[in-house]
Amino acid sequence: MNDRTDLPEDLLARRVATMRSSAVRDLLHDARRPGMLSLAGGLPAPDLFDVEGLRAAADAALAQAPREALQYGTTEGDTALRALLAAGLRARGAAVPDDAPLVTTGSQQALDLVARALLEPGDGVVVERPGYLAALQVFALTEARCVGVGGDAQGLCVDDLPERLAQGRQAPAGRQDRASASRADGRLKLAYVVTNFANPTGATLSLARRIALLEWAVRNRVFVLEDDPYGGLRVEGEHLPPLLALAERVPGAADWCGYVSSLSKILAPGLRIGYAVLPEWLRGPVVRTKQALDLHTSTLTQAIAARYLAGGRLDARMPAMREAYRERRDALCEALAAAFGDTLRVSRPDGGMFVWARFTDGTDTTRLLPVARDAGMIFVPGEAFYDAAPDRATLRLSFATATPAQLAEAVSRLVSAHRALRERAPAPDGASAASEQGDASPPDNPTARVPEANASAARQAGASAPASAAAIRDACVETALEAWEDAGMRGLCAEGRWEVAIGAIRSLDLHAIAPRD
Amino acid sequence: MNDRTDLPEDLLARRVATMRSSAVRDLLHDARRPGMLSLAGGLPAPDLFDVEGLRAAADAALAQAPREALQYGTTEGDTALRALLAAGLRARGAAVPDDAPLVTTGSQQALDLVARALLEPGDGVVVERPGYLAALQVFALTEARCVGVGGDAQGLCVDDLPERLAQGRQAPAGRQDRASASRADGRLKLAYVVTNFANPTGATLSLARRIALLEWAVRNRVFVLEDDPYGGLRVEGEHLPPLLALAERVPGAADWCGYVSSLSKILAPGLRIGYAVLPEWLRGPVVRTKQALDLHTSTLTQAIAARYLAGGRLDARMPAMREAYRERRDALCEALAAAFGDTLRVSRPDGGMFVWARFTDGTDTTRLLPVARDAGMIFVPGEAFYDAAPDRATLRLSFATATPAQLAEAVSRLVSAHRALRERAPAPDGASAASEQGDASPPDNPTARVPEANASAARQAGASAPASAAAIRDACVETALEAWEDAGMRGLCAEGRWEVAIGAIRSLDLHAIAPRD
Repeated sequence: MNDRTDLPEDLLARRVATMRSSAVRDLLHDARRPGMLSLAGGLPAPDLFDVEGLRAAADAALAQAPREALQYGTTEGDTALRALLAAGLRARGAAVPDDAPLVTTGSQQALDLVARALLEPGDGVVVERPGYLAALQVFALTEARCVGVGGDAQGLCVDDLPERLAQGRQAPAGRQDRASASRADGRLKLAYVVTNFANPTGATLSLARRIALLEWAVRNRVFVLEDDPYGGLRVEGEHLPPLLALAERVPGAADWCGYVSSLSKILAPGLRIGYAVLPEWLRGPVVRTKQALDLHTSTLTQAIAARYLAGGRLDARMPAMREAYRERRDALCEALAAAFGDTLRVSRPDGGMFVWARFTDGTDTTRLLPVARDAGMIFVPGEAFYDAAPDRATLRLSFATATPAQLAEAVSRLVSAHRALRERAPAPDGASAASEQGDASPPDNPTARVPEANASAARQAGASAPASAAAIRDACVETALEAWEDAGMRGLCAEGRWEVAIGAIRSLDLHAIAPRD
Repeated sequence: MNDRTDLPEDLLARRVATMRSSAVRDLLHDARRPGMLSLAGGLPAPDLFDVEGLRAAADAALAQAPREALQYGTTEGDTALRALLAAGLRARGAAVPDDAPLVTTGSQQALDLVARALLEPGDGVVVERPGYLAALQVFALTEARCVGVGGDAQGLCVDDLPERLAQGRQAPAGRQDRASASRADGRLKLAYVVTNFANPTGATLSLARRIALLEWAVRNRVFVLEDDPYGGLRVEGEHLPPLLALAERVPGAADWCGYVSSLSKILAPGLRIGYAVLPEWLRGPVVRTKQALDLHTSTLTQAIAARYLAGGRLDARMPAMREAYRERRDALCEALAAAFGDTLRVSRPDGGMFVWARFTDGTDTTRLLPVARDAGMIFVPGEAFYDAAPDRATLRLSFATATPAQLAEAVSRLVSAHRALRERAPAPDGASAASEQGDASPPDNPTARVPEANASAARQAGASAPASAAAIRDACVETALEAWEDAGMRGLCAEGRWEVAIGAIRSLDLHAIAPRD
């Protein structure tokens, strides 16, 4: 009975056995420490919550229709709320009927529902690299194969998306045959893209690329899921239409795109109100899946949201909210520029909550974080947003939750931390190399860099001479091993891990291996 | 491009492609028709909602700590709420610490979380037969293999649980090897049981069987998940301790059992507050999975629930609530007895919401439902609660939502419908057979009956003579085909479908095939 195979944890399914906790969620605990200035969260500004409006809406819901607000409800969601969400989409150019939105428990659940409706183990899903970590986690739970595609200031590099014919694969077999298909036959089924002020890069997908993305989806028979949690928070420039609206311009595209968003960023995350608009063929399976997963989203918070939105207070408050976010973005960007100059390259997003930045002096932000925490501020190391081979010089800073004064103070603490780290451990050999590479790769378009551990191994192997073939080979091996491990940790199957590992070798920056002194 | 394999719906994953909607959830739409008396739902009585208490709690949450109630929260849940839920469990004998309960979006989500943490395609999960349909759906989404085990008035027949050695299977390989294991090697990992006033049978698992179940779990290295949504609604007899409490008496059992429940039945379903208490080895994976699925449950409804429970109103209201449910149970049972006499065998549960009944005159309740709906009442046909080979003479009636007067009226409408159905289509040949079988199998312990279509096929084949070997063979074939189809609809793999089909043949009631005239 003491046989090792009889441990209870041997019951765990492969998909969770080695799953990691989200770095961002874990930082929430730190964020609650007294005096801590957190630029780590994806939290909206609590001082901008319309507490009085929500309190009135809650009271009205419980006073006027308590049984509906407290009883079980339909899986699709509150009828009034769905109509209000549909009206919001129509105002942005998407001709959706009142009953199109399906209410979900946050937009996070919508991602899970779509993933479970589509993805078999080994199926491919395109994700942005770097991208939203919790989406990667959801896809990993289905044991899908994530295919990272990079982006730049115009968003996802649509030209880099894989083409089915170029993959050397035949069209997949019909449904009857697919049941017996092995993982190796997994089809590229889904492309997941945050179109406005993406997390973490802040980039917005350009209009031309939106059209090109839809054309690619139709051509390759891949479903594109647009995630738009931040779209309402544009602080500069013109709104771009969602893919749902643009699908009218691309023949056949209506069947190949869907939209998810939420009230978390513009109203309150605590309500857990997200929504999804999906083509007919996908709606039924998603609704039936949600039935099984949580029956429905809270009828009380749906009733509160519906009453609140119907009252028109949100529309009235949005200009002031956007102005507050604009001030905060400017405060953070200016403080960072003044404090770090060329040492830190910083994106300037047109909205949302996040600034993406990259140290040009080789600073490893994962090592910087504990020092910054001690100094009284936290951020998210960029590493958290990569599926493999992370650029460790990057970091994400949220300007949403702190006031301009707090942002300035947080940057001042980050400066202290950065200085302390440099003093504690002198700049690594790779510093100037990182700096040079930084010039070649602006923060909006980071290319894979050799992980520092590998670089130092390579440096050891190469001694003070130029990097030898053996050192490069060793670095390749180490990079592949690390990527394989990483991919395994994310629950990918052997196939997926292999692809990630090969990809990591292919994107290994050989210049960074060459010793510099 | 018009190739059939290029239809968008070909992207659907096997787990959802043929998933059915829940019969019970679908009936919610009917339940909302004006004048309809619904005994179909699992809905608690809305007239017993403490609207004023919840309104005050909501107002207090938004007045006193609005930022906490509206902002993102930790995945594990609200600290105060967890402590209150833990205290409730301690009062029932389970020595759990304050931070043991993990808050979930209804207890339904807890089932999904445990299923996803444990079950690989082909793994086995024991379910009660008949049992809670939405649990079967959750397990089917993981492509697990459901193993139905029957019950009687004392709950699940624990003696009928499969023993590992008896299965002729070796202990499974260690985790490293499991990754490459085929579905055929799926391990029996989970047993799911509703211990108190089960849905649909109303049966309560006896103390002796609770202990025996834990011993079986330890012996067979299977995790037992106790689902206890109705435990608070005992209207007669003594509370029995949850498995968590009894695990102290069974060496090693603490690691092999978990508990889920919710506030839906005793406070309000619309809050979507469920909770799970799990052993340490399972907690981490479940929390990380929930992070990915919906980040956390509504902080607002958690704050409302915490304030409400802390105020002590629930404890004060429970006696009156139980009394109201007792009156309703009695009203329904008495009305059914008076109206149907021996034609309907009716369970009399010690609590919960459901009466389980079985027609002894061969009435097919799935055919009865539309007639009853026309007469102004609905129930759930028993068919909905079987994984395969349903007993079509059974039905579930909820006494929770209607008043005693409404229950009496609903029964009167059911009588009309029953009469109308009998007049419309005269009693089938099998009526007297069903009646006889009814005597042999009380509603608490239904055995598999031959589906009516098969029985009539057998009767055709056998003409007026005693059933021939060919008729039995034909019935076997048809039963297996139907079970195979059913299992496929539930998303089982070929292995699982085969087992269900074989099981259906094994439990085919040969007496019911013999022609009676």
